[in-house]
Amino acid sequence: MIKQAACIGGGVIGGGWIARFILNGWGVNVYDPQPGAQDKVEQVLANARRSLPALADVPMPKEGKLCYCDSIEQAVSGASWIQESVPERLALKHSVFKELQRYCKSDAIIGSSTSGFTPTQLQQNSDKPEQIFVAHPFNPVYLLPLVEVVASAKNIHSRQLRAQEILKSIGMSPLLVRREIDAHIADRLLEAVWREALWLIKDDVATTAEIDDAIRFGFGLRWAQMGLFETYRIAGGEAGMAHFIAQFGPALQWPWTKLMDVPELTDELIEKIATQSDEQSGAYSIRELERIRDDNLVGIMRVQKNYNWGVGKMLKEQDQKMLADIETDSRTQSHQQPLNMYEGRVLPAWIDYNGHMNESHYLTVLSNATDNFMAYIGVDEQYIAQGGSYFTVETHIRHLDEAKLNAPLTVTTQLLSCDAKRMHLFHRLTCPETGKLLATGEHMLLHMDLNYGKTSFASDAVQSCLNDIFEYHSALEKPEGAGSAIGVKLKARS
Amino acid sequence: MIKQAACIGGGVIGGGWIARFILNGWGVNVYDPQPGAQDKVEQVLANARRSLPALADVPMPKEGKLCYCDSIEQAVSGASWIQESVPERLALKHSVFKELQRYCKSDAIIGSSTSGFTPTQLQQNSDKPEQIFVAHPFNPVYLLPLVEVVASAKNIHSRQLRAQEILKSIGMSPLLVRREIDAHIADRLLEAVWREALWLIKDDVATTAEIDDAIRFGFGLRWAQMGLFETYRIAGGEAGMAHFIAQFGPALQWPWTKLMDVPELTDELIEKIATQSDEQSGAYSIRELERIRDDNLVGIMRVQKNYNWGVGKMLKEQDQKMLADIETDSRTQSHQQPLNMYEGRVLPAWIDYNGHMNESHYLTVLSNATDNFMAYIGVDEQYIAQGGSYFTVETHIRHLDEAKLNAPLTVTTQLLSCDAKRMHLFHRLTCPETGKLLATGEHMLLHMDLNYGKTSFASDAVQSCLNDIFEYHSALEKPEGAGSAIGVKLKARS
Repeated sequence: MIKQAACIGGGVIGGGWIARFILNGWGVNVYDPQPGAQDKVEQVLANARRSLPALADVPMPKEGKLCYCDSIEQAVSGASWIQESVPERLALKHSVFKELQRYCKSDAIIGSSTSGFTPTQLQQNSDKPEQIFVAHPFNPVYLLPLVEVVASAKNIHSRQLRAQEILKSIGMSPLLVRREIDAHIADRLLEAVWREALWLIKDDVATTAEIDDAIRFGFGLRWAQMGLFETYRIAGGEAGMAHFIAQFGPALQWPWTKLMDVPELTDELIEKIATQSDEQSGAYSIRELERIRDDNLVGIMRVQKNYNWGVGKMLKEQDQKMLADIETDSRTQSHQQPLNMYEGRVLPAWIDYNGHMNESHYLTVLSNATDNFMAYIGVDEQYIAQGGSYFTVETHIRHLDEAKLNAPLTVTTQLLSCDAKRMHLFHRLTCPETGKLLATGEHMLLHMDLNYGKTSFASDAVQSCLNDIFEYHSALEKPEGAGSAIGVKLKARS
Repeated sequence: MIKQAACIGGGVIGGGWIARFILNGWGVNVYDPQPGAQDKVEQVLANARRSLPALADVPMPKEGKLCYCDSIEQAVSGASWIQESVPERLALKHSVFKELQRYCKSDAIIGSSTSGFTPTQLQQNSDKPEQIFVAHPFNPVYLLPLVEVVASAKNIHSRQLRAQEILKSIGMSPLLVRREIDAHIADRLLEAVWREALWLIKDDVATTAEIDDAIRFGFGLRWAQMGLFETYRIAGGEAGMAHFIAQFGPALQWPWTKLMDVPELTDELIEKIATQSDEQSGAYSIRELERIRDDNLVGIMRVQKNYNWGVGKMLKEQDQKMLADIETDSRTQSHQQPLNMYEGRVLPAWIDYNGHMNESHYLTVLSNATDNFMAYIGVDEQYIAQGGSYFTVETHIRHLDEAKLNAPLTVTTQLLSCDAKRMHLFHRLTCPETGKLLATGEHMLLHMDLNYGKTSFASDAVQSCLNDIFEYHSALEKPEGAGSAIGVKLKARS
């Protein structure tokens, strides 16, 4: 399959799709006749470039090619995936589909970003309704993995599976909606909250800031990692879910929501909300809020990576897939020079009060390189599960230069010495953009038997791999700074 | 004010209150006549002890005293705060209030954990209605900061302010609800989502697992750090909030929610939900789910601490308050021995695939100790804002022993040498529980002029403080391991 997408409509949602495709190595043709569309796309892309790669612990694919087109015909020809993100007017969507289906490949998948329309509605009047799906993403599209996939009876099952595979390949988590329904799943829940929130503001029970705090200081924190039902399952405890629901039951008959009714969106109510929102968030520009949001989202998602949970589990799987694509290369590295063991960027959370990567994260990066070297010589998850691993017993870092937010980082690794139980590594941390050496890391590791908590011999295969590398690396020059101690003699001023 | 609370009712919610008070240094008397109540409280307390301190970057206060009482009289006498967390039956709550108001101090504050009742309802039949507030927390109470405070016209304003201050002092974020309303604010939003979710399951649009994924892979991530309105403000972009709402307006008239109606909780529907929930989460015990949830919550909240945003901003302020309580001590340390520069615990996110604190987090801890030492000698936020700081140029860590999850950690710091531009520190990282030395860290730091990016002299005050410490520390024995290089000569096996 050719990794070529077409995006019709380049607003906040369309721009998010474009960024996600491009950063995952897809070429993207954009068609959006609105004035200023290109600027908007570039802004979204700039946000995406600084945040999406920060979710990965492996190098991202090479960026795809972005092309702004003058016609739908030019945009869609040759595309395997076409994403429609035009305004929510059914007649407009129908005319876009008509035009693009005239020129697109017959096996192309057409996804619609619609929040509310069903695939059956979208497919009306189309000659090839089987091409058109709902693929409803969430803002910011380049970071949030959820995409609701909805099909009608006219869609072909095999193509639906392919759609899901493509969405997964660009780091998304497709949720196949079992039945066509207005607003799919997530927007139904959001609409319920939205209606209730409008009432709370209209009736002066709470301001926009208070409602937001009621969410983000409480259940919003829960929902970032477990949803509604898993959270309630825990609250119900050992007595079980059925018991919990039975307890909650009576409240359904109580006046705990206003949702039997809908508030009228008068000018007065709109003005009230807009004013409250200005008071709440007006100190920040939209651009600043976007970056705060994205930094938070990256951090919140990466936390779950630590625990291989929820969205973090998905990110880890995505890392493995991206790694598989480049692994062939790294597995066949020449041993005649230091090995490439890390590629990444300085993450937002690594910046400290001095405005640069905090000293402790030099070791985060070096430690990652050590992990990758271990995997390279065969000390991988499987090896560790069988009870063998290496523990670092000594670390010497020379912090030679600063690293700023988002700076690219690479680490090369030289094996200084090794025996059956030990290995002595020397990492060089470099910024490939400036060519500057940022740090060196010298590390002594001991092979451990995890079951007995004692040092032990590495497996024959690991030893043999180490020896093979050492045969070449021992011929390399001893790195500057290796084997040195801290201890410039200082004299205290009296 | 005496830091003594009484908790009437010790279930999941009551237990959470107990844990939050105890861990913040309050004594707590518990009254709960249910069989097994004490076990439940101890379980909640165990969860809280492993997670709540992990939110702080400063030492927590000494734990308060926990006492199980045989009567309400015994529990409430002497208490400044009384928290009622009995089942949601108004008559039961009234009888509890009647009994406890007979014995409690007249200036005690009585908070009710009620999800749904208004203060006016709770105050019915009370002689001293002014004592009784709603203080509605969220599960897990020991981690989530949100607490809704609701008062009636009968409550006294000064006492309401004191209630908020007390809640803040135990790390909560009180949200004062402007008007009495059934279910306050957050539960109204939750009830709306709950009703919509029940419909989605009843109509086979989605399973419990699918609804949870629709939340936690999408808007749940957004809501952990911004709420509904701030999120939509960003989505609206430069055109503004009023424009955004006007765009959303029509959907209010569309059938995007079922909430005009309420699904009946038949046995069949309850069974369906319980079965789906088993399929979704049954692989984990409730205890396991609690720990996963708590680890995630700690991580998600700590991320925002990095950016001084939302819940993280609140946590930082709480740290400062706790620090102010102990600062006097640390400022007057004797210089005749290494200085105490860090107290903490091994956080969940620091554990790696080897099952112990990852090597890189040894430096996280040591780096914290360096920061604290800098603050101790006067290189604090204000000093840095004026353009001076120290950068670490060299680090030597000896990893001497493992540290497991939640193990207590302390760091002492010895000044090995210093001059006008440099300081040479030696940290000892110890587990005070086992007395084991876990690591040593040797660090060379250079004083920098941040404006010019060059080395510079430290201020006279800082130099004088360093010299004062060095006068004593130079008389201490040179630490074992200081000044050593990595480089046991290894011979590769051929």
